[in-house]
Amino acid sequence: MKECDPFAVSQTLMARIQKGAFLTVKAGESLNAMTIGWGLIGIIWQRPVFMVAVRDSRHTFTIIEKASDFTVSVPTSDMKEALMFCGTKSGRNVDKFEALGLVPMAAKQTVSPVIKLKGIHLECLIRFRAPMNPALLDKALEELYPAKDYHTLYFGEIVACYETDAS
Amino acid sequence: MKECDPFAVSQTLMARIQKGAFLTVKAGESLNAMTIGWGLIGIIWQRPVFMVAVRDSRHTFTIIEKASDFTVSVPTSDMKEALMFCGTKSGRNVDKFEALGLVPMAAKQTVSPVIKLKGIHLECLIRFRAPMNPALLDKALEELYPAKDYHTLYFGEIVACYETDAS
Repeated sequence: MKECDPFAVSQTLMARIQKGAFLTVKAGESLNAMTIGWGLIGIIWQRPVFMVAVRDSRHTFTIIEKASDFTVSVPTSDMKEALMFCGTKSGRNVDKFEALGLVPMAAKQTVSPVIKLKGIHLECLIRFRAPMNPALLDKALEELYPAKDYHTLYFGEIVACYETDAS
Repeated sequence: MKECDPFAVSQTLMARIQKGAFLTVKAGESLNAMTIGWGLIGIIWQRPVFMVAVRDSRHTFTIIEKASDFTVSVPTSDMKEALMFCGTKSGRNVDKFEALGLVPMAAKQTVSPVIKLKGIHLECLIRFRAPMNPALLDKALEELYPAKDYHTLYFGEIVACYETDAS
């Protein structure tokens, strides 16, 4: 495990996240991982922040709404199959960790675990939530919401960032 | 002028923005530049996006609320004095461009100009606006809002990114 500066690895993060990363959230006994392909990184409120977007229709949404933190695990090796599975199956119907042999690994600063993989991990404390108001969305983006299941944006203060070799 | 990949320069952007950058907005005849020290960059809605935050109390707020785009000009050389001025004076009372000898330069894709400087420029089309709901803000951040003048978050699709040498 090697600590890293989230901004020093931001180019890698963005390139990899477009291919898929795991957003893992735990609240009480509920734990789920979903595939994300989007994310913003930077500084706001004088803190390093990572922002993720979760549609209200997702199983993860019901968990993250009760959670105080989340993690993002970004594989730097090929995990196409697991990412595809986590992006298309719902944690309501299947235990993704068991089905895929994904191993949750205790995080350092968050209740939500990270995923055991070769890659970069971000541990984030949720500081602000913004449910999308469709009235303030540009028309150009409406086609992404045919079912009107808008995203809620979660802004997490990055409290730990590190690379792992475990795959 | 040299085109660049916003993610390839994201580490530089974040390091520099913490020292101050110019957010420039034009709507109709109204034009203003303010200093920002925060920003998020990444991918959302299948697009490269830069997010800025503007307090409702700012002169820039009245302009950006009518605007369809903004630019961010990030100096890579020292512009401490101009940044301090733009961060402390209001465009309501003073023409910052005239007072500082800042030169607006026509942008390629946006109505809002960029600032003539040695640095990196982002031209962004506003795709989504999120006024902050204080009820969804973590208590840890409340101290940043003693006057309750919350930020509105503006998500701009990055339609041009380039470096300039002009200082």
